[in-house]
Amino acid sequence: MENEKDTIAAISTPIGEGAIAIVRLSGDEAVSIANQVFHGADHLESVDTHTIHYGKIVEPINQQTIEEVMVTVMRAPKTFTKEDVVEINCHGGLASVNRLLELVLSRGARLAEPGEFTKRAFLNGRIDLSQAEAVMDLIRSKTDKAMDIAMNQLDGKLSKFVNQLRQELIETVAHVEVNIDYPEYDDVEEMSHDLLKERTKYVSNEVERLLQMSRQGKILREGIATAIIGRPNVGKSSLLNSLVQETKAIVTDIPGTTRDVIEEYVNIRGIPLRLVDTAGIRETEDIVEQMGVERSHQALKQSDLVLLVLNYGESLSEEDRKLFEAVEGLEYIVIVNKTDLEGKLDIEEVKRLAGEQKVITTTLIEDEGIKELEEAIADTFFEGEIESGDLTYISNVRHIQLLEDTLKALADARQAIDEDMPIDLVQIDVTRAWELLGEIVGDTLQDSLIDQLFSQFCLGK
Amino acid sequence: MENEKDTIAAISTPIGEGAIAIVRLSGDEAVSIANQVFHGADHLESVDTHTIHYGKIVEPINQQTIEEVMVTVMRAPKTFTKEDVVEINCHGGLASVNRLLELVLSRGARLAEPGEFTKRAFLNGRIDLSQAEAVMDLIRSKTDKAMDIAMNQLDGKLSKFVNQLRQELIETVAHVEVNIDYPEYDDVEEMSHDLLKERTKYVSNEVERLLQMSRQGKILREGIATAIIGRPNVGKSSLLNSLVQETKAIVTDIPGTTRDVIEEYVNIRGIPLRLVDTAGIRETEDIVEQMGVERSHQALKQSDLVLLVLNYGESLSEEDRKLFEAVEGLEYIVIVNKTDLEGKLDIEEVKRLAGEQKVITTTLIEDEGIKELEEAIADTFFEGEIESGDLTYISNVRHIQLLEDTLKALADARQAIDEDMPIDLVQIDVTRAWELLGEIVGDTLQDSLIDQLFSQFCLGK
Repeated sequence: MENEKDTIAAISTPIGEGAIAIVRLSGDEAVSIANQVFHGADHLESVDTHTIHYGKIVEPINQQTIEEVMVTVMRAPKTFTKEDVVEINCHGGLASVNRLLELVLSRGARLAEPGEFTKRAFLNGRIDLSQAEAVMDLIRSKTDKAMDIAMNQLDGKLSKFVNQLRQELIETVAHVEVNIDYPEYDDVEEMSHDLLKERTKYVSNEVERLLQMSRQGKILREGIATAIIGRPNVGKSSLLNSLVQETKAIVTDIPGTTRDVIEEYVNIRGIPLRLVDTAGIRETEDIVEQMGVERSHQALKQSDLVLLVLNYGESLSEEDRKLFEAVEGLEYIVIVNKTDLEGKLDIEEVKRLAGEQKVITTTLIEDEGIKELEEAIADTFFEGEIESGDLTYISNVRHIQLLEDTLKALADARQAIDEDMPIDLVQIDVTRAWELLGEIVGDTLQDSLIDQLFSQFCLGK
Repeated sequence: MENEKDTIAAISTPIGEGAIAIVRLSGDEAVSIANQVFHGADHLESVDTHTIHYGKIVEPINQQTIEEVMVTVMRAPKTFTKEDVVEINCHGGLASVNRLLELVLSRGARLAEPGEFTKRAFLNGRIDLSQAEAVMDLIRSKTDKAMDIAMNQLDGKLSKFVNQLRQELIETVAHVEVNIDYPEYDDVEEMSHDLLKERTKYVSNEVERLLQMSRQGKILREGIATAIIGRPNVGKSSLLNSLVQETKAIVTDIPGTTRDVIEEYVNIRGIPLRLVDTAGIRETEDIVEQMGVERSHQALKQSDLVLLVLNYGESLSEEDRKLFEAVEGLEYIVIVNKTDLEGKLDIEEVKRLAGEQKVITTTLIEDEGIKELEEAIADTFFEGEIESGDLTYISNVRHIQLLEDTLKALADARQAIDEDMPIDLVQIDVTRAWELLGEIVGDTLQDSLIDQLFSQFCLGK
């Protein structure tokens, strides 16, 4: 990462033809650089903060007008980065926005790295790391529920919760140290052990509670990876079509939104169902024949959910039984399709094979059963309705890993206590847990890891 | 087109994941609608115009926070549409910007039609029609030169020129009428005829001058449609690659810009070369064999330029000669490739076949000759260097058609004079010319045509 004092610039709107494109600048020179290329009624260096100004962008070298713009001037510290920020809104052509960016780069701004604006917001203390990550989650959200989680996190709800737990740990450690330094009783060691055990247990429980919901959080954010399998002509394609058509698309059908971007997702009551490799689905017909039961089981394991489709009009075949073997131990739902046909399938046997997994009967031609299937999916992953309102779902793999490491550090602490280890050895584990939680909010994270995190952001953010 | 007093809303940034997305509102209710969903330190209905405000977007029904935003309030009349305009800048996710749009639509805004913001700018008299068209041209510009033309037009240079010509015509008509109404001499009819003839001739010349540059203007805007033909293995693909690699790409290689969008264009000294149907180029090998000379000539006629590639290492074949027949009468450049091979091609014969068309020798392996080819192309279409600075290039097909119709109306007027027709019949033709010029700036254009024009704009503009 280059100099953190540079004035940076980037195109902050998606690339493409649109009505408005924005070149954003941040840093000490943001206003003066913009002013060098701006011709308007106002002198940008003397305008009030948080005001917007009409004018033209003129190439200073040859005085050629290159764009008609609205320029927003926002002075530190009440800005996204806590630095001076200028946003130049221009007519959104590819060539014009690129020329504008080139122009401000030629006047002394440096091209921002991906995520560098948000990184500055973090480094300058406006948001913590989990909030910065929420910004990116918000952008990548596929459904309203996923947005709600990201928004809660951006609001600082996760940070607050994590910081409370850290406070708990640091106070406990401080308390123990006071006890040791000023012993009023003889059994200081034992008292400290008890205190440590009780408080670490409390924090462990809270972390576990958070982790328990992490699967839901991850699913709300990334979608349920779903594979559809079944013998030829049992209705896999119809199922796929019914899901795509009958469920509300992830992004509503407002003209101008691109279906392509999101067509592999369907929205089941706010849960994004990510259809794994749609091309692949069409070929799973003979997945078991081709790969054998064991290998196809491994392949299917990459899904969160398998939809196993059977034909009501045919008795259970050897291939069907192999499919049941392949999904053994996975999360799956059996769909008995074509119930309009004369029943030859032994439903009781199917239910026996499915064990605790749900069995749904449907005739996809009339889209019956799709509602039932939606309920079954919601039920499987969320035990009914999802409440995203106030919950702090952990949805970020990095956070999940850190919470699991925290749990382990706290377990180590308790084990050390049980084994009557010296109190300062126990404290090392507790401090480690405190540090791990700190990495979630970015308090105790190494610079190189921070750089890496932000590099995954999109340009101009 | 729906009610012009509605408050309209649309997503004004390109669709995709980006750092910032904008929902724009325009109309009397813009500020109050935004204020209904905005929670911040400021009450939007009482803030100063042209100011920007931090806050959150909250769903009024359940008080759920759905986005963190910056809201710009711009009050009429100093806005893009001359109406109250509000721009809500949010974190640029697909789901979030759609949700935001849905929310403002649910509070009383109507989804804007394509181009409706710009249409309001036109209907409310902020810009004329040729300027509105320039807005769209600016967005679609492929090179800096094309942008310059659009910017000149947006600046009103074309409008000013056209309006001067219209003024000339209307004053002449008025003058003639005065002469007729208050005749001081007997030869009023003759004097009026002379005056009309002189002034219409002047206007015709000016229009012709504008039209003469229209081919260049159109090319700068849309690019030179270029086909590459030649027998198998003469080096068509190498030529294509050399053009793409050696010339500066249309949009500079700033990280984050998508090459895909523009990959079919190459930039030859500011002139966009549009490679016609790249897939097709690979198949033109046997275009003549498959289609016959006449039909392939018709197909190639759709290009502005044909690059005919020959192999220096082989003598001229029957197929080569057929290619020359197919490009007869078209604009083409002969490229004698592979000059590193032993020369078997009779260059003199090639030059004889090419007649006045240019012949360039090259060995594409070392990218020699590409510069020469670039010069030849610039020379063919612009006689050397392009001056876009102050020129008013007509680049719009609609404008070209109107100017040609204007010329015809003025020619009709002069013919009527020559045939000693009554003065009021001559005036009809002159008035018709005045009307046709008026259609360029939108003064005399029918509503239905205006609607149609704006419907070609992009959404949110």
